[in-house]
Amino acid sequence: MFAIYGHPEAARLTFYGLYALQHRGQQSAGIVVTDGEHFMEKKAMGLVSEAFQEEDFSRLKGHIACGHVRYATSKNYQFADIQPFSVRYADHSFCLAYTGELLNAEKLRVQLEKEGSIFQTASHAELIMHLLVRHLHLGFEEGLIAALKQVQGAYCMVLMTEDTLVVARDPRGFQPLCLGKLGDSYIVASETCALDLMAGVYLRDVEPGEILFIGKNGLRSLKPFAPARHAHCIFEFVYFARPDSDVFGRNVYLARKRQGATLARENPEVTGEFVMSFPDSGNYPALGFSAQSKIPFEMAMIRNHYVGRTFIQPTQDMRDFGVKVKLNPVRNLVRGKEVIVVDDSIVRGTTISARVQRIRQAGASKIHALIACPPCRYPCYYGVDFSTKGELIASTHSVEEIRRALDLDSLHYLSLEGLLNSVDGSTESGYCTACFSGNYPLLPEEEPEKI
Amino acid sequence: MFAIYGHPEAARLTFYGLYALQHRGQQSAGIVVTDGEHFMEKKAMGLVSEAFQEEDFSRLKGHIACGHVRYATSKNYQFADIQPFSVRYADHSFCLAYTGELLNAEKLRVQLEKEGSIFQTASHAELIMHLLVRHLHLGFEEGLIAALKQVQGAYCMVLMTEDTLVVARDPRGFQPLCLGKLGDSYIVASETCALDLMAGVYLRDVEPGEILFIGKNGLRSLKPFAPARHAHCIFEFVYFARPDSDVFGRNVYLARKRQGATLARENPEVTGEFVMSFPDSGNYPALGFSAQSKIPFEMAMIRNHYVGRTFIQPTQDMRDFGVKVKLNPVRNLVRGKEVIVVDDSIVRGTTISARVQRIRQAGASKIHALIACPPCRYPCYYGVDFSTKGELIASTHSVEEIRRALDLDSLHYLSLEGLLNSVDGSTESGYCTACFSGNYPLLPEEEPEKI
Amino acid sequence: MFAIYGHPEAARLTFYGLYALQHRGQQSAGIVVTDGEHFMEKKAMGLVSEAFQEEDFSRLKGHIACGHVRYATSKNYQFADIQPFSVRYADHSFCLAYTGELLNAEKLRVQLEKEGSIFQTASHAELIMHLLVRHLHLGFEEGLIAALKQVQGAYCMVLMTEDTLVVARDPRGFQPLCLGKLGDSYIVASETCALDLMAGVYLRDVEPGEILFIGKNGLRSLKPFAPARHAHCIFEFVYFARPDSDVFGRNVYLARKRQGATLARENPEVTGEFVMSFPDSGNYPALGFSAQSKIPFEMAMIRNHYVGRTFIQPTQDMRDFGVKVKLNPVRNLVRGKEVIVVDDSIVRGTTISARVQRIRQAGASKIHALIACPPCRYPCYYGVDFSTKGELIASTHSVEEIRRALDLDSLHYLSLEGLLNSVDGSTESGYCTACFSGNYPLLPEEEPEKI
Amino acid sequence: MFAIYGHPEAARLTFYGLYALQHRGQQSAGIVVTDGEHFMEKKAMGLVSEAFQEEDFSRLKGHIACGHVRYATSKNYQFADIQPFSVRYADHSFCLAYTGELLNAEKLRVQLEKEGSIFQTASHAELIMHLLVRHLHLGFEEGLIAALKQVQGAYCMVLMTEDTLVVARDPRGFQPLCLGKLGDSYIVASETCALDLMAGVYLRDVEPGEILFIGKNGLRSLKPFAPARHAHCIFEFVYFARPDSDVFGRNVYLARKRQGATLARENPEVTGEFVMSFPDSGNYPALGFSAQSKIPFEMAMIRNHYVGRTFIQPTQDMRDFGVKVKLNPVRNLVRGKEVIVVDDSIVRGTTISARVQRIRQAGASKIHALIACPPCRYPCYYGVDFSTKGELIASTHSVEEIRRALDLDSLHYLSLEGLLNSVDGSTESGYCTACFSGNYPLLPEEEPEKI
Repeated sequence: MFAIYGHPEAARLTFYGLYALQHRGQQSAGIVVTDGEHFMEKKAMGLVSEAFQEEDFSRLKGHIACGHVRYATSKNYQFADIQPFSVRYADHSFCLAYTGELLNAEKLRVQLEKEGSIFQTASHAELIMHLLVRHLHLGFEEGLIAALKQVQGAYCMVLMTEDTLVVARDPRGFQPLCLGKLGDSYIVASETCALDLMAGVYLRDVEPGEILFIGKNGLRSLKPFAPARHAHCIFEFVYFARPDSDVFGRNVYLARKRQGATLARENPEVTGEFVMSFPDSGNYPALGFSAQSKIPFEMAMIRNHYVGRTFIQPTQDMRDFGVKVKLNPVRNLVRGKEVIVVDDSIVRGTTISARVQRIRQAGASKIHALIACPPCRYPCYYGVDFSTKGELIASTHSVEEIRRALDLDSLHYLSLEGLLNSVDGSTESGYCTACFSGNYPLLPEEEPEKI
Repeated sequence: MFAIYGHPEAARLTFYGLYALQHRGQQSAGIVVTDGEHFMEKKAMGLVSEAFQEEDFSRLKGHIACGHVRYATSKNYQFADIQPFSVRYADHSFCLAYTGELLNAEKLRVQLEKEGSIFQTASHAELIMHLLVRHLHLGFEEGLIAALKQVQGAYCMVLMTEDTLVVARDPRGFQPLCLGKLGDSYIVASETCALDLMAGVYLRDVEPGEILFIGKNGLRSLKPFAPARHAHCIFEFVYFARPDSDVFGRNVYLARKRQGATLARENPEVTGEFVMSFPDSGNYPALGFSAQSKIPFEMAMIRNHYVGRTFIQPTQDMRDFGVKVKLNPVRNLVRGKEVIVVDDSIVRGTTISARVQRIRQAGASKIHALIACPPCRYPCYYGVDFSTKGELIASTHSVEEIRRALDLDSLHYLSLEGLLNSVDGSTESGYCTACFSGNYPLLPEEEPEKI
Repeated sequence: MFAIYGHPEAARLTFYGLYALQHRGQQSAGIVVTDGEHFMEKKAMGLVSEAFQEEDFSRLKGHIACGHVRYATSKNYQFADIQPFSVRYADHSFCLAYTGELLNAEKLRVQLEKEGSIFQTASHAELIMHLLVRHLHLGFEEGLIAALKQVQGAYCMVLMTEDTLVVARDPRGFQPLCLGKLGDSYIVASETCALDLMAGVYLRDVEPGEILFIGKNGLRSLKPFAPARHAHCIFEFVYFARPDSDVFGRNVYLARKRQGATLARENPEVTGEFVMSFPDSGNYPALGFSAQSKIPFEMAMIRNHYVGRTFIQPTQDMRDFGVKVKLNPVRNLVRGKEVIVVDDSIVRGTTISARVQRIRQAGASKIHALIACPPCRYPCYYGVDFSTKGELIASTHSVEEIRRALDLDSLHYLSLEGLLNSVDGSTESGYCTACFSGNYPLLPEEEPEKI
Repeated sequence: MFAIYGHPEAARLTFYGLYALQHRGQQSAGIVVTDGEHFMEKKAMGLVSEAFQEEDFSRLKGHIACGHVRYATSKNYQFADIQPFSVRYADHSFCLAYTGELLNAEKLRVQLEKEGSIFQTASHAELIMHLLVRHLHLGFEEGLIAALKQVQGAYCMVLMTEDTLVVARDPRGFQPLCLGKLGDSYIVASETCALDLMAGVYLRDVEPGEILFIGKNGLRSLKPFAPARHAHCIFEFVYFARPDSDVFGRNVYLARKRQGATLARENPEVTGEFVMSFPDSGNYPALGFSAQSKIPFEMAMIRNHYVGRTFIQPTQDMRDFGVKVKLNPVRNLVRGKEVIVVDDSIVRGTTISARVQRIRQAGASKIHALIACPPCRYPCYYGVDFSTKGELIASTHSVEEIRRALDLDSLHYLSLEGLLNSVDGSTESGYCTACFSGNYPLLPEEEPEKI
């Protein structure tokens, strides 16, 4: 999610911002821009680089824009679901870019339908728009606050009117959202790497529970919600965020290296001729492991950078082709060696299984795997859609069973304390660790605040 | 270049082979297959993954196939130039996949035109086909030998007839070409990584000056040319080949690591807080440098893996966007640090200049660059088209001038001896070092052998 | 608009139906199908033949389907506006295909917004869906009746639920809508030519003010509205409908021939060497004129059938290229002749002007134009969007002024009585002639019926 | 085929010229332009309107251009076969656009291959280029004459050099080729309708056996061949040419009308309630038949103008869908009537069979078919590829057998004398009637002239 206020090339910069944030969603991309009076938009399925052409930007004129890339969470995802989501209401246009997951969406939807609302999508963005217009009689600002007080869950959102940008983050701050400037323009982005790309300056994070109004008179902040214990998603540090970003005030690269170092400290008995990773997400903890253990780091899996979206099926005798075409081990390096593989996480277990197999075929004598987080045992209710990757192998298998299933000589996970310490230097901090611990900071049952 | 003899899915495997060799040419891709009687082909501009669709392979039926990816060497490159190059002659079909550069092409062409030949392309493949048919009265085998005795230069080629695969490599062996098997099928490929992808077995290199005939009765080898001193392209180890390949009998990854280690030994005075590279080609010498110097390795430049072929121009105030969108430094790591950057080579100097600038902007206090080869001072006549990358900066500038132009605190190149030693453990070996040394193993003036 | 109930290939037949009705809208096409439980849809900009591919139909499985082609009425038309329009409401799905124009849409919209509805499009289809859900507490049937009693204007609509097809036509019957059968399946289509294509049988027209419920127990008809004087659009016979269709119970081809014959009777003094038309819409009245006047008919303008959607601009000296490329006069026929041109109608006057010019350039000595309807002087409020064709030339110019502007030797319009008589054999009949007469059967001011 | 000399927008005008000539070939389109020094080209499969985009013309700069549309004659047709055909020879570029068929092609090809020529296509254009360069030692003009003296058959060709346009037509003049001017620019086109489109002036036909050199010093004509009896293709008047064109000095529209009138005179006993045709090619003889017989003409088959290139298959119970979707009879007109159908020709018989069936299904009581040419009994050796339409039904069936196969009440063909008289007012004239009579003006056996 990216938004900018007050730049003559707002849509173009939003394009670049989405480009930098592409890793957060590859299924669709959309940009809406306003020139102070009218909205113009472009939405398309696929990658940012495919969704937009130069000619789009001659049409997308305006000084305020917001954009969204979408992470696939449903097979039924269709064009109407692409965000930002625009509506017309009583001579006004509103546009919403939203990430997260609402826990009381179904209940709210049923109630809204009882009152006559109709829905064209299953998206929570549409739900929030309905709540907003139901409260607009209180005025825009009060109406928005009232609407947001009704929802429970994880969200970061940008609401654009013809001439204003409104930014909101849920009181627990599940997902990252940062505020920056580029010259006189304000920027809001999911990660700081989007700021870097355009040489913007990071100001601060949008705070949990904060609503920002950005308009002609500058920036105004409200904190209308009851304070809540923070619950930053720890998985951002494990897998989601780009290593060159800072999220929740911490640099991701350094945190990942510390995870690898902690893994080495927690598993001093693990030894081998070298440490390797599966590029790219495993690289950083592997470097940390190597630095701590003094076991040399090798880039023993070579990535093919030209892998496209081909659907050409291999012949019967070529299994695991998807993995093979992407990564190839350096045989001369691996053959006859005891190797230590560091990876970021294991969700379903299928990807790592095929990759381990490739190292085995290249002749490794022993393979030890070290995982830079604890076993993922519990589903996420706040927007990380593990389920699209299939069932969580650790929810039904012990570590020893996983080790055997993956044909590993040994398998070691980072402890939860080790992970928290690596990220934050403390285990007291306000992170959501539900996927590892089952401790959910917010559950579907809880009642929304009264307005 | 890839070819396979004797597999029911010959075209499909050629597709995968080209996929693995995509780094050797991105401008066009072509596959020709024969079922023993007829040729079927598909050629297209662009990447292998874009050029072929699943439905193509229902048409490309046959058990012998060859494929080609083309490295852009001319702006006038057009559809007719896409290889493999097919002709019909006297009820026969021939098809040629060719890489390299002929030194006496112009002279041969003028002579052929005098004798009535017409050309539809500027490609040397068409020239060789003309020479072949002019000598077919000697029989196919003798005719081919006579034709190849007329050409001077660097070449690897696969000539396909309706039922035979003929492979040839020039007597000096400028470019790599390996022979492998997949079950009972023979495979010929530019690099061994193509064999790995399909779990094929490496047999040996096609030898310099060797002609292989692969047909119903198996494989037959001829060496009809006068022996010549080998002149393997040393630049394959610097930049061209994939690190997981073996070329000229040596593993590329290990050679690059040794280059980095030699750089460290040759420059013991260079120091810094960490060693980094520009991914991916600089990674391997950087690892070698780090291992030798004991200075830690960091992956301080993060690659955006979703960079497409966008031509959307940034705004005026966003310079070097092409670099920025691809690589972003980890600011927290670089800020205030003295850093050592290891890169594979400097050709024109523009790419590295923009990248160094990015590190500087991220706050590095000092930047030392170490280059894993000597200065590139001389053009290549054998197929490495430096000129498409622009002029060679080192041909007109001293190292100190380059250092200043790139805004570096120090700049160090690997010595030629160091490079040869790193690759081969000796400086006596048969490599072409012309781009560094100006010692050309073969010059345009030389007369071709008499037939 | 096309819908079918009870056929295993419902979507495919809807595709063919839309194909036959393509002349009613070229801007977008959409099909929604239900298998009794779920909706599946495909929508796209452009022609039916471009919008759908074979693979779409492997997905669009079900036995009930409706489809829509859309006539451009707005530059701001975008993807979300493509019909049929689907919504989800309280565990139900509804889908609406709609043609026509509501006169009280703005008033209804403002009121709905006051009650909390939000709109994603400017379409009246969305408006009707909102009205429906607001009344669903009365039950589906009563709710639909209540909703439709609120709207004023011209409409034909198909409302699809998971297992039912509901068809409705406004009480005045502005637009045509017919009912047919294909085996046991019911079909609803804007024109009978859609039935012909699939060898379906015409049963009868859907009656003005009728609501049809088609479901498991067959067909049920309701007529819940107060009767109103019929107001069938006379322009269907002039231009809109396909000549092989029957609309409002009359064959279009024969009606157009009678218009031409009446033109001849009303203008006995007009003479020339032959009668010609601008294909194809002028062909039929021209044939009638020729038959009545005994002046021979010639096809003196030849149509280029390969005209695509090219936007390649001609050079400066090639004016009226759009007309030239489509139609070319047979010079040998026209040169030196006094010719009678019969055309269906003049709206803005620009198309006929360029065409007359072409005949003039081909050497015609005199050109008489006879138009098969009266001057179009008044805008249509019921869905014929003259305004996309620009201003009505006859609303601001006399016939003599138009004759001079078009460089004609004489210009003659059919009288309104002549038109009505040609269509219906009577001038008493229930047609809307507002665009010619200014007598609007329904005006925006009128209040909707009370529920 | 179209070419223009001396216009700043040569490529663009060639585009329009091909547009007007699209009916002569739909499989591929190509344009080559020269600015006096270099050739630039664009070729593509498909229609002219699809093959070229606006941006192509910013690249196709020059004042001389030639273009070609290709009629499919082979399933193996591929990109390399698209004309115009360009070659480089001894620092010169040549480009050839060619239509027709050479009778001694195979013999010439074998001989050229013996002398060392290789072929990349099966096209006669490549063959002619080889002959040309073999004779260039005589100089360009003499070489071209010598080359053309070697070939036997039907041809019209445009040969473009960097700065000259050479036009040639075979001595018998099988195919039409006209010469015109647009301002100071010379134009050559297959039919005069291409001149009309750009308001060019028709000068005269390129004469049979004439070679025109168009260059800086204007136009020069040579007639180097022995005179031969003319053999203009009579089928141009039956089907091929556009009715608004003049070919071989006669207007096509008027000739077709006369064919219809002659049909009426030859078959006075045929009667019915009206005369109809299958649009568009049958329209003109039908008009002539109606005018002569005084039986009224009706346009009883309505054409769907939006038929695209859809490959969506109908359901089992929808046969002849290809015909149905294109043409629909007006039922009210046909039902219960005895109808006379006039069509241009019957080749394979399948198309007319499906169309007759449609009229039968619409309720016609009797159907009489009158064909505006004699039975097509013999293959064409000069470029009209009947064989792509399948076998000639009249070569194996009597008229009575065809009548029964087509389910007609009567079937009448125009006599050969009637056809010749209709076209030319005489039966003495120089037309090729081989497809009807079997009298071939030139047979494969004949020896080429000695040079």
